[in-house]
Amino acid sequence: MTVAYDGTDYKGWQLQKDENIKTIQGEVENACKLLFNQNIECIGASRTDKGVHALGQKAVIDVETTIPTQRIPIALNNFLPEDIVILDAKEVHSSFHPRKCRQRKTYEYKILNSEYKNPLLVRYSEFVYEKLDIINMIEASRYFLGTHDFKSFCAAGSSVKTTVRTIYDIKIDKADNDIIKISVTGNGFLYNMVRIIAGTLISVGKGKINPNQIMDIIQKKDRKYAGMTAAARGLTLIGIEYFSEEHI
Amino acid sequence: MTVAYDGTDYKGWQLQKDENIKTIQGEVENACKLLFNQNIECIGASRTDKGVHALGQKAVIDVETTIPTQRIPIALNNFLPEDIVILDAKEVHSSFHPRKCRQRKTYEYKILNSEYKNPLLVRYSEFVYEKLDIINMIEASRYFLGTHDFKSFCAAGSSVKTTVRTIYDIKIDKADNDIIKISVTGNGFLYNMVRIIAGTLISVGKGKINPNQIMDIIQKKDRKYAGMTAAARGLTLIGIEYFSEEHI
Repeated sequence: MTVAYDGTDYKGWQLQKDENIKTIQGEVENACKLLFNQNIECIGASRTDKGVHALGQKAVIDVETTIPTQRIPIALNNFLPEDIVILDAKEVHSSFHPRKCRQRKTYEYKILNSEYKNPLLVRYSEFVYEKLDIINMIEASRYFLGTHDFKSFCAAGSSVKTTVRTIYDIKIDKADNDIIKISVTGNGFLYNMVRIIAGTLISVGKGKINPNQIMDIIQKKDRKYAGMTAAARGLTLIGIEYFSEEHI
Repeated sequence: MTVAYDGTDYKGWQLQKDENIKTIQGEVENACKLLFNQNIECIGASRTDKGVHALGQKAVIDVETTIPTQRIPIALNNFLPEDIVILDAKEVHSSFHPRKCRQRKTYEYKILNSEYKNPLLVRYSEFVYEKLDIINMIEASRYFLGTHDFKSFCAAGSSVKTTVRTIYDIKIDKADNDIIKISVTGNGFLYNMVRIIAGTLISVGKGKINPNQIMDIIQKKDRKYAGMTAAARGLTLIGIEYFSEEHI
């Protein structure tokens, strides 16, 4: 299923042990229970953090039902709050796991770069008052392209087998409402990686980091050389594309 | 002062007798009290309804202070929640009343016309599932231009001296994210007038009202002939322009 949500009022995707903690997974599983009348686990492709949004999260449920697959989104949406929407559903092989297949993920990070905050954009963007140099940000962004060890851009303390990732594409645009959008597509992202890239690009925009320092920061393989972790509210998971349903 | 706000969590602009009811005016007056250390009334140009947003509300306070006028927005914003922002301030004549001067107001009404709701747009738009005919909506919108008795487009039971208003401009655009925007500029609007115009244009888009029926509906001078009142969440007060500070 493709799932969209406003993450503002949730403690992230992942179900928490404490049932009183609101999570997206918890809400979707609750809707599944009401629709299918059984307990169903819903496995997400991305364990998005507290406050992070999604327009194209992928999630899998395993259920036998007489409801036609294409009717499941509308049926589930009846039982979901209006800040979570199932956008589509299709059948996959029973062994498909949304985190264990070869994929391309796209995230978007939004910065409101203006003199004043905009209350209609505040839930979905990081506010930066200092005028950002977008030309330098674009130049800096090119150093992220390709396959690198992104240890400098991984939250300290997170444990993964490898910190090597590939970034296929990174784009920075400015819209006419003072919003700067950073779009990043890669084969996967480390914990907080997109937010640390965004925070580092904000430092570049402020003139605190030179574009040509980015390669050095990557090569240090140490979190302390990169910029701040930009706020969760600016981040949206745009989409996930699977190359095949085979496990890696 | 120019005031922007997300109206979702407020019972409208106007202060209510019950102090526990959250209003925009109440929040701004509270911030004024904290900054200036005295009770100050804040008079708004538009008494926007529960759930209606603003990017360009105008509001006046009467205060003697040593704080330079251009610093007042930043000083007040410190005491305001993040869904209310003061964007600028300038001095006006002590007799200036923001509702009693000749003015042009612009409102924008947003419709999300798509198969599924979008949780990142749901606070700021009315969702319409049926595909709307935007060409017919544009044709219908032209009948609103000019000076008319808009009694058919005024919430039943509201009492005003005259229901004659002038609409200077009305524009309908479709953005690439399935948002249809209706922008209306006039010398003033009756209670719920923009929302009833939007609701009527939605009926036109659905094919329930023909564009050439709009003139008839205006001439009936009866609320029951116009379309539904569209939801408050789709409405944003974009701006107010004063021709002079003299009272009408």
